[in-house]
Amino acid sequence: MTMTPIVRQILANYESDNPGVKANLARILMQGRLGGTGKLIILPVDQGFEHGPARSFAINEPAYDPHYHFQIAIDAGLSAYAAPLGMIEAGADTFAGQIPTILKVNSSNSWSSSINQAVTGTVEDALRLGCSAIGFTIYPGADDVFEMMEEIREMSAEAKAAGIATVIWSYPRGGQLSKEGELALDVGAYAAHMAALLGAHIIKVKLPTDHIEQKDAKKAYEGLDASTQAKRVAHVVKSCFNGRRIVVFSGGAAKGADAVYQDARDIRDGGGNGSIIGRNTFQRPREDAIAMLDRLVAIYQGAE
Amino acid sequence: MTMTPIVRQILANYESDNPGVKANLARILMQGRLGGTGKLIILPVDQGFEHGPARSFAINEPAYDPHYHFQIAIDAGLSAYAAPLGMIEAGADTFAGQIPTILKVNSSNSWSSSINQAVTGTVEDALRLGCSAIGFTIYPGADDVFEMMEEIREMSAEAKAAGIATVIWSYPRGGQLSKEGELALDVGAYAAHMAALLGAHIIKVKLPTDHIEQKDAKKAYEGLDASTQAKRVAHVVKSCFNGRRIVVFSGGAAKGADAVYQDARDIRDGGGNGSIIGRNTFQRPREDAIAMLDRLVAIYQGAE
Amino acid sequence: MTMTPIVRQILANYESDNPGVKANLARILMQGRLGGTGKLIILPVDQGFEHGPARSFAINEPAYDPHYHFQIAIDAGLSAYAAPLGMIEAGADTFAGQIPTILKVNSSNSWSSSINQAVTGTVEDALRLGCSAIGFTIYPGADDVFEMMEEIREMSAEAKAAGIATVIWSYPRGGQLSKEGELALDVGAYAAHMAALLGAHIIKVKLPTDHIEQKDAKKAYEGLDASTQAKRVAHVVKSCFNGRRIVVFSGGAAKGADAVYQDARDIRDGGGNGSIIGRNTFQRPREDAIAMLDRLVAIYQGAE
Amino acid sequence: MTMTPIVRQILANYESDNPGVKANLARILMQGRLGGTGKLIILPVDQGFEHGPARSFAINEPAYDPHYHFQIAIDAGLSAYAAPLGMIEAGADTFAGQIPTILKVNSSNSWSSSINQAVTGTVEDALRLGCSAIGFTIYPGADDVFEMMEEIREMSAEAKAAGIATVIWSYPRGGQLSKEGELALDVGAYAAHMAALLGAHIIKVKLPTDHIEQKDAKKAYEGLDASTQAKRVAHVVKSCFNGRRIVVFSGGAAKGADAVYQDARDIRDGGGNGSIIGRNTFQRPREDAIAMLDRLVAIYQGAE
Amino acid sequence: MTMTPIVRQILANYESDNPGVKANLARILMQGRLGGTGKLIILPVDQGFEHGPARSFAINEPAYDPHYHFQIAIDAGLSAYAAPLGMIEAGADTFAGQIPTILKVNSSNSWSSSINQAVTGTVEDALRLGCSAIGFTIYPGADDVFEMMEEIREMSAEAKAAGIATVIWSYPRGGQLSKEGELALDVGAYAAHMAALLGAHIIKVKLPTDHIEQKDAKKAYEGLDASTQAKRVAHVVKSCFNGRRIVVFSGGAAKGADAVYQDARDIRDGGGNGSIIGRNTFQRPREDAIAMLDRLVAIYQGAE
Repeated sequence: MTMTPIVRQILANYESDNPGVKANLARILMQGRLGGTGKLIILPVDQGFEHGPARSFAINEPAYDPHYHFQIAIDAGLSAYAAPLGMIEAGADTFAGQIPTILKVNSSNSWSSSINQAVTGTVEDALRLGCSAIGFTIYPGADDVFEMMEEIREMSAEAKAAGIATVIWSYPRGGQLSKEGELALDVGAYAAHMAALLGAHIIKVKLPTDHIEQKDAKKAYEGLDASTQAKRVAHVVKSCFNGRRIVVFSGGAAKGADAVYQDARDIRDGGGNGSIIGRNTFQRPREDAIAMLDRLVAIYQGAE
Repeated sequence: MTMTPIVRQILANYESDNPGVKANLARILMQGRLGGTGKLIILPVDQGFEHGPARSFAINEPAYDPHYHFQIAIDAGLSAYAAPLGMIEAGADTFAGQIPTILKVNSSNSWSSSINQAVTGTVEDALRLGCSAIGFTIYPGADDVFEMMEEIREMSAEAKAAGIATVIWSYPRGGQLSKEGELALDVGAYAAHMAALLGAHIIKVKLPTDHIEQKDAKKAYEGLDASTQAKRVAHVVKSCFNGRRIVVFSGGAAKGADAVYQDARDIRDGGGNGSIIGRNTFQRPREDAIAMLDRLVAIYQGAE
Repeated sequence: MTMTPIVRQILANYESDNPGVKANLARILMQGRLGGTGKLIILPVDQGFEHGPARSFAINEPAYDPHYHFQIAIDAGLSAYAAPLGMIEAGADTFAGQIPTILKVNSSNSWSSSINQAVTGTVEDALRLGCSAIGFTIYPGADDVFEMMEEIREMSAEAKAAGIATVIWSYPRGGQLSKEGELALDVGAYAAHMAALLGAHIIKVKLPTDHIEQKDAKKAYEGLDASTQAKRVAHVVKSCFNGRRIVVFSGGAAKGADAVYQDARDIRDGGGNGSIIGRNTFQRPREDAIAMLDRLVAIYQGAE
Repeated sequence: MTMTPIVRQILANYESDNPGVKANLARILMQGRLGGTGKLIILPVDQGFEHGPARSFAINEPAYDPHYHFQIAIDAGLSAYAAPLGMIEAGADTFAGQIPTILKVNSSNSWSSSINQAVTGTVEDALRLGCSAIGFTIYPGADDVFEMMEEIREMSAEAKAAGIATVIWSYPRGGQLSKEGELALDVGAYAAHMAALLGAHIIKVKLPTDHIEQKDAKKAYEGLDASTQAKRVAHVVKSCFNGRRIVVFSGGAAKGADAVYQDARDIRDGGGNGSIIGRNTFQRPREDAIAMLDRLVAIYQGAE
Repeated sequence: MTMTPIVRQILANYESDNPGVKANLARILMQGRLGGTGKLIILPVDQGFEHGPARSFAINEPAYDPHYHFQIAIDAGLSAYAAPLGMIEAGADTFAGQIPTILKVNSSNSWSSSINQAVTGTVEDALRLGCSAIGFTIYPGADDVFEMMEEIREMSAEAKAAGIATVIWSYPRGGQLSKEGELALDVGAYAAHMAALLGAHIIKVKLPTDHIEQKDAKKAYEGLDASTQAKRVAHVVKSCFNGRRIVVFSGGAAKGADAVYQDARDIRDGGGNGSIIGRNTFQRPREDAIAMLDRLVAIYQGAE
């Protein structure tokens, strides 16, 4: 694992972090086929919590098995695998040391009556399971967002002291945000910025549209060219401390492979660090998924 | 760093504090171009949390970078730099020992549905990041103000034991306060007084208008000449234990430079300790901001 | 400081308390011009929190300074001085050992939307500031009274273990109590009794009228002669464990000096232990206040 | 990093350990040029503590610099680097994620008057510095060995809970052991067994001679063919739970390269897992050391 | 306080430390007349503990007053002041923020029957007193040195987490070391190296003679030119991680000024970071001491 200059430069941005946290970030950045490029693809499998098993896995039955996801992340040469406690526990021994894992420490579900999540894992779990990072979702805009922020403040402080990195999923929802607004450029950039301010090492947001949601923000966006997705990605990255933090984008619901490839090209061209790509992976037959991830890797390697 | 009589006198007012807290207050009061004068200018950059990155920084793009703010605070010879966790983490190593930092430990955002803030930093964070103080906002008048007061009581006690100073932003909002009332003289003086009673070392309030909001207070204000801004500043300072606490004033939204200078003159003439000046700094091109801060320093030095 | 039989007898009533608590009660009972008489006058200055600085101090400008209150309490030979955290911090060093202090550990304010208070001080604060007691307000009748009771239960337990005494301000408010009812004899006696039951060492209530508020209580009061204020005081004292607890009475808003004197005579004649007298002290010019307190001391000494 | 069957089999032997510990063992077993072979070479640099800087480094001056050792371990493709606190602290950030580190948490020195070591590092240090394991020396035979065993029992338990592996250096010394006996086969096998019984994941012992030290053990060794070093290695490995624990051997003082190579062949042929080779590395010029390590790697790969 | 390149470079060597520790190191390195040069002079006043007050201060009576030492360190423009708990407590408020202080947390005395020290201060003391560092003595060679090492391991870990730096006084004594050996070059270099391995940020040793004490080390020193004091200093500095740690030297007992100056020149020329100079300061009349320190500063500035 020869450290590359680009990874060295990314790590140097985490200037207040201890070597333990940096080693875990390095593990993710040096893993798999994108290792050393500064780009990364993360496989997240928390859909079972969010939508239930059948909506998540029936379309591709082998995906009911937790080992399936570890194995595909390894075989496709991805950078890390993220999942809730039970999923990690069910494969952590078999795949120990084979791929960095991110313990998703809070989760929601389809029946939730509030826009919030339950904290379902701990830093101690992450340590005993050999995880490189904890993952946490906040819902900026929701009534409960202050509570969520206070939860991650506490967990992240504990994780940082123990050399574990923090990934924040920042998904605007609730309050006065319109449905369209949840994906608005101004909203996405703001959500990403809040994750950075909370001390996240890796920030995960959705690819934004060119909609501007907040009236008060319209003027600030007048001069900004947001006409292409790559330019919008660049704005989100800029909003994360001018690129001093790793930012990855999710592709949302399963969709056509071409759209997935175009997203990756735009993330790459806009200076984003990569994709976090769940349903588009495990809701395809394994061979198709491997082929798709293979091409995504190639895109992030700059091949097309 | 030869201690001046005026700083010595200010420190003597914090008579129940331990030498650790006093050393940190001294660091702020002896820092930069106003060091030793008893006056101070603090650069706060929490606008990204409050209003989002584009509304905060698009007008002056280099300001997206956390290092920009550390550097301008140092170059302009300011007294301290205040920001939320992520912003401090992103520059604390590079600028260690170059300027006192204030860790803003709670923050709100534009989408908040309650008049409250999330606690997003801790005293332990302040220690590991080398901060001289924690900063905390209370919203007197808000339904949640008791909760906020209890949060700062706990954090401030912990900070005082560890030699860290406490800065309270006291911003009246919510409840039965009218919009005009939030800036009323009686309201501002009361808010400042509550911060003092909560044990703040440095109190930050807004410059008050001559409006009197509370019916019950009108009589008490009959004899008070509040016709000039300097006189209103003097009343607020008096309300902070008769000048025994450091009081700084914010200028609010970005505005014309002349208005900013006049505010500083009024703060100075009314016996206030200085300005906390964010948007009016970082929403100008760097050269303009430096020039403006240069002139503010001169005003506080008594030059004009 | 030779202990007197009457003080010895009062202390003996606190039979489960440790010598630390008794020593602090003894400090209050042996302090000043009423030292050794079993009577006491306490100066409370929490009006700034409750009503704001101008309504509290504008009428007597030197009172903006925290030192003013320490000094007048000492000069008038009073028994103790009670105030919130910031006020005590601002003078605790200068006046250390000169007068017993009571740290008022919860406070409300004029803009509060609930009938409750914020906890703004701790037992640890009391220890580091050298206070003899903590002071805490409960609002019997209010929706939040159970929460308040639980707060003082916790703080009082901690205080007792550390040898710090507890003073409870018991002010009926809220719920189904009428405005007149807040001062009713049955209500005041009931509120005082609850404070005693909560483990208070010193109970502070308002002087009651002869109104009986509670229908269910009317029968019980049929046989009681409540025709004079002294008799009503006696009933309240009896309600505090038959006189086994120290009870002091507040005089309410600033009023004519003669009314204040008459209140003191009634408290004395009814067997109350003394007055807690704030606005009637600091809202008068210092000389007038000293003169008034001088006469009050004389009354409690039995002189007139 | 594709896990190999041999490494999988080794990890399976640690059947009660959590995935965190296994991931760290896997990191060591999958690192460098021997990654995946089940063999390993560890570079230990605690000679400075044991013998002083000049005796350790004067012969090869660049070795005074802690970065030198990290770099050579990486460049030679070794499995892990072990050193005391200060040495790790001095390079942990620069080399974060590039090579697994073992924090040597106790150390002796040349002037020690007892056969014991000082505990100079903690599991928390290992976590913040990103170490994969702690290393600890015991001196079976010494008067203080029970104290040492109890220290590692406590630290190892803490490490295991946090996913950190434990390496025990087991060096018989003191008590009634003769100088010759310290290297005796029965003594070395016994010492290795005690390390295994104490819960070590990796056991480090010296290469034993064919001397049998203990009278009571002579009979047991009658039937054992200990005529070659490889056979003696096999006996030690058997003594470590029949090969269920990783065992590495040290080569002792700097010596001729040929002797070092022969040791490695014997370790390999006897079923040992590898070498821990300090002085023989850093007391040679860098080019020679790299060449020697290159050939050692080849030997462990089975090339000669 | 504009950070200089040389100080920036020194701070970068502390690569695993948090910004809090670096800020405190920066405070020392940027303080006084040597601020920014990478050189430092520390005033230590623990002689009263070691030798008693009369032997320490009778020769210069004003030195009995703790304020005397704070003041002379400030007036002479030194880098830091080090003393035991009581000495720091006696001046920490008066001189808060005027000079970095080092709390000497262990101390011996003339009557001690063991070669050890009592731990007489804590990290919490350092925080409440506003100290930049803790100071701790180890006696390599002494029977109790393992205990001392374990004490500083624990305190240093706590200090590092709280942003406080660690200074280790490493004084070889006891065991089989001869009196001459305590000052031997090999012994001093070894002692300094042990302090570095224990995680010290600043290492304090005595200036070594050209004696080589350890038989086993003689060979390693054969090739080393130790003929001048500057060359011996260079060897000690090299032994502290090849110059990656700050090393200061003590001058020992009070002696002629010329010898003190020559020591400083040798420390400077050998690449040492400065002097820690106690008795030679406070056992001279104040004017003489100031004149001597003035010239020492000039020497470290390279003036002669």
